[in-house]
Amino acid sequence: MTRKMADPEKSEVIPVPGRDGGISDRTEVRLAGEGGQGMILAGIILAEAATIYDGQNAVQSQSYGPEARGGASKSEVVISSGEIDHPEVLQPDVVVALSQEAFKKFASTVKPTGLLIVDADKVDSSSAPHAIRLSITKMAFEATGRIITANTVALGVLVGLTGVVTRQALEKAVIARAPHGTEEINHKALEAGFAAAGKVKRSDPEDTQR
Amino acid sequence: MTRKMADPEKSEVIPVPGRDGGISDRTEVRLAGEGGQGMILAGIILAEAATIYDGQNAVQSQSYGPEARGGASKSEVVISSGEIDHPEVLQPDVVVALSQEAFKKFASTVKPTGLLIVDADKVDSSSAPHAIRLSITKMAFEATGRIITANTVALGVLVGLTGVVTRQALEKAVIARAPHGTEEINHKALEAGFAAAGKVKRSDPEDTQR
Repeated sequence: MTRKMADPEKSEVIPVPGRDGGISDRTEVRLAGEGGQGMILAGIILAEAATIYDGQNAVQSQSYGPEARGGASKSEVVISSGEIDHPEVLQPDVVVALSQEAFKKFASTVKPTGLLIVDADKVDSSSAPHAIRLSITKMAFEATGRIITANTVALGVLVGLTGVVTRQALEKAVIARAPHGTEEINHKALEAGFAAAGKVKRSDPEDTQR
Repeated sequence: MTRKMADPEKSEVIPVPGRDGGISDRTEVRLAGEGGQGMILAGIILAEAATIYDGQNAVQSQSYGPEARGGASKSEVVISSGEIDHPEVLQPDVVVALSQEAFKKFASTVKPTGLLIVDADKVDSSSAPHAIRLSITKMAFEATGRIITANTVALGVLVGLTGVVTRQALEKAVIARAPHGTEEINHKALEAGFAAAGKVKRSDPEDTQR
């Protein structure tokens, strides 16, 4: 894993492979957790941020196999400013894991140069020394009083770290999909995610909780 | 279009190509409407019915291109009892169109032997003489008082006509995804959809509203 974090002041975002000068700007994202953690909705929101509010193209999907009967749930998004020929996520640039089982199943699928984000309180990621460990669910509860907003916090972290969509686009997409009456708490959850990403980027890599 | 409706008493469901004796039982479904009609959620529910409650495999996806900025919204589901090699919908076996723009964009993509279901009050389908025309949104309002349940009615119609998943599986999937407090109206909407499908199957093809 060779994320370029040596000089965070110079780069506004942690470069995701393919977005920093390569010929393709295709970014593959895999969001994984338990059923009920809202990872499918998070995928839809990220895709809508990319397309409706950011003018890119996106494909968002869920593949269900035998594992759908209990266990880890995953949602995938492919984002590109160009046409998307292959809608499948082959080797994600970013993996978010909010549960131990999701981590076990999907952490190893991330690109060697990719970004792995885990919930520090839910995942034992000692086998993945370069994972970004953040207390995502705890932050959600502290910011909004509702752990169900952990998916929104995770989106804030992901976009804050990668810049795969603009912050403004993500804010609009989150609010557009927030159930009536939850706009405010979802906004707070998003702020908490962006703030956590900001701290990761400002911190010395040696200091972060990894 | 050669749907086998000549003797509805003999066939429990309208055969969808590939499900009646072929080597592949892959079924491709495209659900299309306006943003806000809940077609993405309908796709997720159908995929969960197939996988979690019916033991099949499924891929559910949305592709967003430039058309995502307003206009027709579509959701796609591939269902198979075997492995799904290609997650893309190439030529759907079933297309549901709940708006005129969705009809214009996607009606022509249905397989020549496939099934086209349109909302009779929203779509001018005079160019598609073999479409199944049903007042889906109106039925939703009459059954539940809320037109937002039209997507659930549409699922009942689709599954009632095709049997692509079992009725029991669809019922469980709808209830599992129904927002708290809306279980009862979603159940009613589903009943209305199944009832409408039953009428189509019992009627002489010459009599149906096509």
